[in-house]
Amino acid sequence: MAERIAVVFVLFPNLTQLDFTGPLQVLSRLPGADVHLAAKTLDPVPTDAALNIPPTCTFADCPPADVLCVPGGFGVDEAMLDKDLMEFVRREGARARYVTSVCTGAFVLGAAGLLKGKRATTHWAYHDALADVGAVPVRARVVRDGNVFTGGGVTAGIDFAFTLAAEIAGEDFASAVQLGLEYDPAPPFDAGSPDKAPPDALEAMTKRYAPRFTAFRAALSRALSRAMTNP
Amino acid sequence: MAERIAVVFVLFPNLTQLDFTGPLQVLSRLPGADVHLAAKTLDPVPTDAALNIPPTCTFADCPPADVLCVPGGFGVDEAMLDKDLMEFVRREGARARYVTSVCTGAFVLGAAGLLKGKRATTHWAYHDALADVGAVPVRARVVRDGNVFTGGGVTAGIDFAFTLAAEIAGEDFASAVQLGLEYDPAPPFDAGSPDKAPPDALEAMTKRYAPRFTAFRAALSRALSRAMTNP
Repeated sequence: MAERIAVVFVLFPNLTQLDFTGPLQVLSRLPGADVHLAAKTLDPVPTDAALNIPPTCTFADCPPADVLCVPGGFGVDEAMLDKDLMEFVRREGARARYVTSVCTGAFVLGAAGLLKGKRATTHWAYHDALADVGAVPVRARVVRDGNVFTGGGVTAGIDFAFTLAAEIAGEDFASAVQLGLEYDPAPPFDAGSPDKAPPDALEAMTKRYAPRFTAFRAALSRALSRAMTNP
Repeated sequence: MAERIAVVFVLFPNLTQLDFTGPLQVLSRLPGADVHLAAKTLDPVPTDAALNIPPTCTFADCPPADVLCVPGGFGVDEAMLDKDLMEFVRREGARARYVTSVCTGAFVLGAAGLLKGKRATTHWAYHDALADVGAVPVRARVVRDGNVFTGGGVTAGIDFAFTLAAEIAGEDFASAVQLGLEYDPAPPFDAGSPDKAPPDALEAMTKRYAPRFTAFRAALSRALSRAMTNP
């Protein structure tokens, strides 16, 4: 019988659902995977889309994580200031075999002190802020530093998950899952990163993120000063 | 104020969650989008992973669809034989502006008679069966024939959704969303289609699908003979 591996996703209100559902699709196929969707309570967790996600456990009763994965989204601002969530991430992050994030989930790891001195990535629009949590920002779609795996924005979570799946179960296994999920991407446009996107798209997105980014920086600053007074 | 557009996803037990959540992430960003997750009842719908999806409406009370989208998965076998679901797909498929599917969701459209004479695609392992529903199988990641848009297996749903988003809201809009979702894919391996995958991966997946495919063909055959007796 295959060894069991507990894959734990950290859920919080207003997460970007694909940050979670992309990796979920890949990592749930790992041999022996037991997937847990952990949240503060068992109430369905609202996301950025029409999807509400019923947790499978609370932070208080979640089994120990072998893989800890934190998705991102605008809800990260509040997640970083949620005592229960942050205690859970600190505790599980200290003992998990793999400590991981997708998109701005990196800042939840960072606010928990788990990215200090680590090379890491996040959504392109938030990249520079990685230095605030003591990480070494690397512009890449997936970054590994020891047992810490971080993915870039949203859809990078799929590339992240295949990288992690290969680490855990081998490249042959990851390749078979990739074939099963027909992951041979062919975006109809070449606009998926700031250096490739048309100027108008970059301007539209930069405008969209500007007010969010100000709120985010304030939340991150509060989360980090809390961590300093209650280490 | 932007015109409202009702994007309706058809949910059924044992769907492949990323077939749905990939397009959801893109299409929920359409200007004026009202996303509806329609199922037979309001009970959370189990998927192939740990995720159960709470519907937002039933087939009986779902608002009229502008975009009808049917995901796939092994649950398609039963979905094609569910009278309520098939009636809903027939009714909404007849009046929706866009009739769409991802992965083996194509066979739900096909069993409803919506792919007759249409060029279409589906998951690579099920491609040949498209002819059984009167479609013209096209080996492509996204296929458009008039108002019918079909995507290939699982992750092809993301490429499908950007193609459809550009059709509905323009290429500039789709490009901006692509940048926001950082969709600049970089799979760690090049194994995402049968002609690229290592032979071992292809063999493993072919073995995985063989028994499923037999059951699928039987279900499709039953669904089609029902449609002939109750057109």
